[in-house]
Order: sequence, then structure tokens, then C-alpha cells
Amino acid sequence: MALALPLPEPPWPPSLAPLKDVDDLLRCGICFDYFSIAVIIPQCSHNYCSLCIRKFLSYKTQCPTCCVAVSESDLKNNRTLDDLVKSFNSARQQLFQLVLDAPAVPAPL
Amino acid sequence: MALALPLPEPPWPPSLAPLKDVDDLLRCGICFDYFSIAVIIPQCSHNYCSLCIRKFLSYKTQCPTCCVAVSESDLKNNRTLDDLVKSFNSARQQLFQLVLDAPAVPAPL
Ligand SMILES: [Zn+2]
Ligand SMILES: [Zn+2]
Ligand SMILES: [Zn+2]
Ligand SMILES: [Zn+2]
Repeated sequence: MALALPLPEPPWPPSLAPLKDVDDLLRCGICFDYFSIAVIIPQCSHNYCSLCIRKFLSYKTQCPTCCVAVSESDLKNNRTLDDLVKSFNSARQQLFQLVLDAPAVPAPL
Repeated sequence: MALALPLPEPPWPPSLAPLKDVDDLLRCGICFDYFSIAVIIPQCSHNYCSLCIRKFLSYKTQCPTCCVAVSESDLKNNRTLDDLVKSFNSARQQLFQLVLDAPAVPAPL
């Protein structure tokens, strides 16, 4: 859960643009940050940060994306998403650095 | 689910090695291929291809990774993993091609 507005992120280098869709899938639809303790709503397969969705459910007992009825006891940890966020975020940083450090060469025709 | 042995995959170019952990997390622990219709076992958060785990459960009613008791009705679709497999696989192929096509230049010091 984002406790403050996230810092603006550097734009994606064109060569890494194919990873943008993966990045999008690893973000919570409530806070738009990477999942933090991802939980799945088993009846609709949507995922959110644990704190984001619990806060939402205390106000309205439905999935914010598809409006299916949800109670807090339905939520299940989706730990693979936490592992994916960790690995992807680390890979993304390494690849950004690699691209920024690469000598400027003309692209192959 | 892999219906036949998958073709040997090309080795990861060193510059893309950071993505290997992400790749590993998107593979089923039964067939070792990318998830095909991923399902989650909510009580332990482990994921498998739908067909792989159903076949396994018909023989032994437990999670093959952590041995928690599981029945087929526990399984829930984990659709974000299917979407991640699709996006990641496409990005991986584009990035492999980009690296293979890149002119050989000396690495920056
Ligand atoms: Zn969130
Ligand atoms: Zn939903
Ligand atoms: Zn499988
Ligand atoms: Zn398990």
C-alpha cells in the first residue's frame, strides 16, 4: 500500500517497453503501486494489496473492479505475486541501469 | 500442461539474466513449463496448471510442494498468472531478438 504519492518513475527505455505490460499486471488497481502483500479474491480472481482491499471492504463489500460481493474472510494470500514483484522490480532496475550505461550505437537496420 | 517434452530453450543472454527469476516463478512445479490455466491452492498459495494438479490430485489429495491436504474443489483460478505468462513470454521473445540483433560492441568499462 502506498503511504504517500510514489515518486515519479523514469520513463521506460524503448528497448524495455515490452516489459511494460508485465509491470502493469503487478500493480494494485487501488493504489497503482506494486502489490504489497497481494491477496486474491477467489470468486473473481482479482488481486489487491492486503491493506488496500481491506480498507475498501470496510466501506463497501464488493470487488472494486468487477463489483462481485466480497467479505474480508474471502481474501487469500497470493504469495507468488509478492515473489514476482520482488524479482521483477530487481530485474527492472538492473536492466534500466544496463540500458542507461550502454554506449549509444546506431540501431541495426 | 506440457503434452510433449518442450523443445530445448535457447540459453538466456547474460544481459537478460535478471529476468530468469521472473521466468522461474511463472512455471508450474509439476510440468516445469509456463502455467497453462493457472490455479491456486488457497490454503498454501501454491500454483499449478489446472490439468497438472487435477491429474496429481486424482492420485494423491495433497499439494505436491508442501503436502497440505487439498481437494479438487479447493482449486481457484489465478488468472493474473495466465496474463503474466502471456505478457512475459511475448516480452522475453522481443528482448531475446533485440539482444541477438544488436551490433556487437565493447561493453562499457
Ligand atoms: Zn494497493
Ligand atoms: Zn473482481
Ligand atoms: Zn503444469
Ligand atoms: Zn502447497
